[in-house]
Amino acid sequence: MKIGILGTGEVGQVLGAGFANLGHEVKMGSRDPNQEKVKAWVNKTGAKASSGAFAEAAAYGELVVLCTLWAGTENVIRLADPRNLAGKVVIDTINPLDFSAGVPPKLAIGHTDSAGEQVQRWLPDSRVVKAFNTVGNPHMIKPEFPGGPPDMFICGNDDQAKETVTGLLKAFGWSVIDMGGIEEARYLEPLAMLWIHHYFRTNSGNHAFKLLRK
Amino acid sequence: MKIGILGTGEVGQVLGAGFANLGHEVKMGSRDPNQEKVKAWVNKTGAKASSGAFAEAAAYGELVVLCTLWAGTENVIRLADPRNLAGKVVIDTINPLDFSAGVPPKLAIGHTDSAGEQVQRWLPDSRVVKAFNTVGNPHMIKPEFPGGPPDMFICGNDDQAKETVTGLLKAFGWSVIDMGGIEEARYLEPLAMLWIHHYFRTNSGNHAFKLLRK
Repeated sequence: MKIGILGTGEVGQVLGAGFANLGHEVKMGSRDPNQEKVKAWVNKTGAKASSGAFAEAAAYGELVVLCTLWAGTENVIRLADPRNLAGKVVIDTINPLDFSAGVPPKLAIGHTDSAGEQVQRWLPDSRVVKAFNTVGNPHMIKPEFPGGPPDMFICGNDDQAKETVTGLLKAFGWSVIDMGGIEEARYLEPLAMLWIHHYFRTNSGNHAFKLLRK
Repeated sequence: MKIGILGTGEVGQVLGAGFANLGHEVKMGSRDPNQEKVKAWVNKTGAKASSGAFAEAAAYGELVVLCTLWAGTENVIRLADPRNLAGKVVIDTINPLDFSAGVPPKLAIGHTDSAGEQVQRWLPDSRVVKAFNTVGNPHMIKPEFPGGPPDMFICGNDDQAKETVTGLLKAFGWSVIDMGGIEEARYLEPLAMLWIHHYFRTNSGNHAFKLLRK
């Protein structure tokens, strides 16, 4: 599968490399595809990796992964052009973090809305699936924990899109729990806050959620 | 320890019986201590159990557990009289559920506030600890799950109060994670929504959260 990554931060780099390692072809989109960190990522990731402008990566991907900071997301979607994402599965990894009062961050949006719902509104013709937002990037690929595998909670309005994303998550070693429509992002984004606040309390990011079941 | 329970629903009954089984003396407070379900609970729970008005149970308890429906909580606190709860540890088990659009419920409050914070404002002289809100009542006492014990996330502003509550939780078989001040209820209440929505999606309440760590 051809996968477009929108964003050049750690999440984009980790997921892009993870997808390339699964055998997918990955194009990392950014404002400046010639910036050093993008070139370094392409070189390190190998023959499956390439780079381009946001719109190029969006057009390239059969599936596209949003890995932007919340504050820049609306603009990145405009640069990527929603028409390039129409009909496609778009994985939304974003947490709407507000660092205005320092760390740990608070949620910039919530309760009656969420980043996931906002992304779906910005991309009305795309099939948005919230995923990867409830764990730190060092554990997004092949998470290894005593008592694992951990559970990745996902949500989205399109069942087929969620099946596609579930397949990718399972290939990465996750157990997957589908929570329902994209409005469930109202609860997945606060779950990320528990992850993040625990990180700040313990100075460790070596944790991941599991829903014990019987 | 003498423990007051405010509320006669399933959560109050389960926790009250759980505390009595640990050897504590438990008084269940309600509008009408002579109602059938309260008498039945006292009879079933045994010599450690008694009942009284809200204010009597509040005055009786060295530690008091709020087990009311969100909509009635402010009034119950008024009936219990905050002066009866001053200086005491108050466990807030409540989820601020809004059933106005049917099931599954939504959160009535959130993002920049929470039931936990509101309870603490209603009881400014009490030491409120949020606990027991992220699991269904059948698993509050001695939760048994493959891969367990599950984790109970708690929060509150008073460390000593959280130590007391942690001791009770451990006696019930929980692992405990302290998330910080009472404002963390903004994230623990959405976590309960994941529990509740998963219940509605699967028609099963046999699940509980764990934070895998290494």
